[in-house]
Amino acid sequence: MPMILVDGLPENAVPADDRGFTYGDGVFRTLAMHNGRAQWWPQQYAKLAADCGALHITPPLESDLLRDLKTIAAQLPDCALRITVTRGSGGRGYAVPENPQSRRVVFASPLPEYPAHWLEQGISLRVCELRLAAQPRLAGIKHLNRLESVLARAEWIDPAIAEGLLLDVAGHVIEGTRCNVFIVEDGVLATPDLSHCGVAGVTRDLVIAAAGRNGLHCHIEPINRQRLEAATEVFLVNSLIGVWPVAVLEQRRWSGFKVAPLVRKWLNAFDHPLH
Amino acid sequence: MPMILVDGLPENAVPADDRGFTYGDGVFRTLAMHNGRAQWWPQQYAKLAADCGALHITPPLESDLLRDLKTIAAQLPDCALRITVTRGSGGRGYAVPENPQSRRVVFASPLPEYPAHWLEQGISLRVCELRLAAQPRLAGIKHLNRLESVLARAEWIDPAIAEGLLLDVAGHVIEGTRCNVFIVEDGVLATPDLSHCGVAGVTRDLVIAAAGRNGLHCHIEPINRQRLEAATEVFLVNSLIGVWPVAVLEQRRWSGFKVAPLVRKWLNAFDHPLH
Repeated sequence: MPMILVDGLPENAVPADDRGFTYGDGVFRTLAMHNGRAQWWPQQYAKLAADCGALHITPPLESDLLRDLKTIAAQLPDCALRITVTRGSGGRGYAVPENPQSRRVVFASPLPEYPAHWLEQGISLRVCELRLAAQPRLAGIKHLNRLESVLARAEWIDPAIAEGLLLDVAGHVIEGTRCNVFIVEDGVLATPDLSHCGVAGVTRDLVIAAAGRNGLHCHIEPINRQRLEAATEVFLVNSLIGVWPVAVLEQRRWSGFKVAPLVRKWLNAFDHPLH
Repeated sequence: MPMILVDGLPENAVPADDRGFTYGDGVFRTLAMHNGRAQWWPQQYAKLAADCGALHITPPLESDLLRDLKTIAAQLPDCALRITVTRGSGGRGYAVPENPQSRRVVFASPLPEYPAHWLEQGISLRVCELRLAAQPRLAGIKHLNRLESVLARAEWIDPAIAEGLLLDVAGHVIEGTRCNVFIVEDGVLATPDLSHCGVAGVTRDLVIAAAGRNGLHCHIEPINRQRLEAATEVFLVNSLIGVWPVAVLEQRRWSGFKVAPLVRKWLNAFDHPLH
């Protein structure tokens, strides 16, 4: 059973005039709770606040969210959390109301279960036909305008395919439908530049930081598909899947993953108790 | 007081797991009701169904919507209607659930009041800094991913400015934040091609059809800002404002509008009783 808190109160619904519903005018985070602890909380909260700021939405107080998480932890100590923050209700058309009261919705559901061998043996990735549009004003932000992701995810139904790779119009690799992408080249990491499109996830930031601490440099730059296919390793990251090595991308095969397991180990070092 | 029907029932809220709220996974229409009649209903319903179809969302039955409108007309015979259709609840992440049950939300509120002189003397238009992203898969559809419109509308607060003009990255004129744009050149109409971005409104279609019936051809093609400024007349259309001539666009001034009043008259001929 999912558990939902709307502005701290148990609710199943949001007002029909919420701008998240009417315009997708808001942002969200997806994260894991293990043993009652929200994973990578400081980074998750910082990114939530930054994304709110980018859209001039007042972020919720961290103390309010921590109280929500405590309420949820009491009933669902192991769950997937989705924290949505919208600009709140109202306004005339697209115009923002004078004193918008942002709204927070915390949604807790069971942690997703993925085939265990995906972690070690790697996953199958396909290339999506949809090309991401370039909108620098929204790039990097995990906002509620996710139709591109929905359309891309609807391109396949085969459950053996774990993820879809999204390119932009110019053919640059940007991200997976719900994760960020890293490649390994000659012992150096690279991850796509997301200044024109894509979502810059917290796990991506943590991987870059963790790699740096461990002497592994990460380039952030445009990466085309040929370069990705030539990489010695490719892996996908997000806060629920952790690190998935890519074993199959259409005709290309990879195995003997060395960097992905290391990165997974480093990531775990960021997981310390906070509340 | 607004009046809201969710799947035909009076409600103030939508389920928090509605994909309209979580991903902007839906479409909407804005239209006027006068004396209990929804204006241009056949066209509005056809466009709603077409937009649903473009996203593979099952459109609501016309009979269900007509029943909703009848319920609303009994209490608010003159109102602005917003009809939202979402893919409904659930699904795991972006993946669409196996048998999605689309949801309809009809929201009735007072008709907006605009300064009376805008209709005759024309409005002030500004050029928005935000450039619309090109996404052919979503172009033309009035979907719920409207952050670009929200950001563009947030660029000005001066109530004397009625609308903001949106261009794409290449500098083509696309639309207003909430309306479509027409220009008059040597007795011929032109309106921007919307195959890469923008919303193709019902009123735009009606203007093209009405002009054609009255011997006024309309080109649908890329239009840059220089061409718009060189036009003898520019006007904006949507289902709530009708037809607004543009009097001011930064340094450019227009007056003595001849085509806009004609188009307004032609549009009214499409307004016939249906239910």
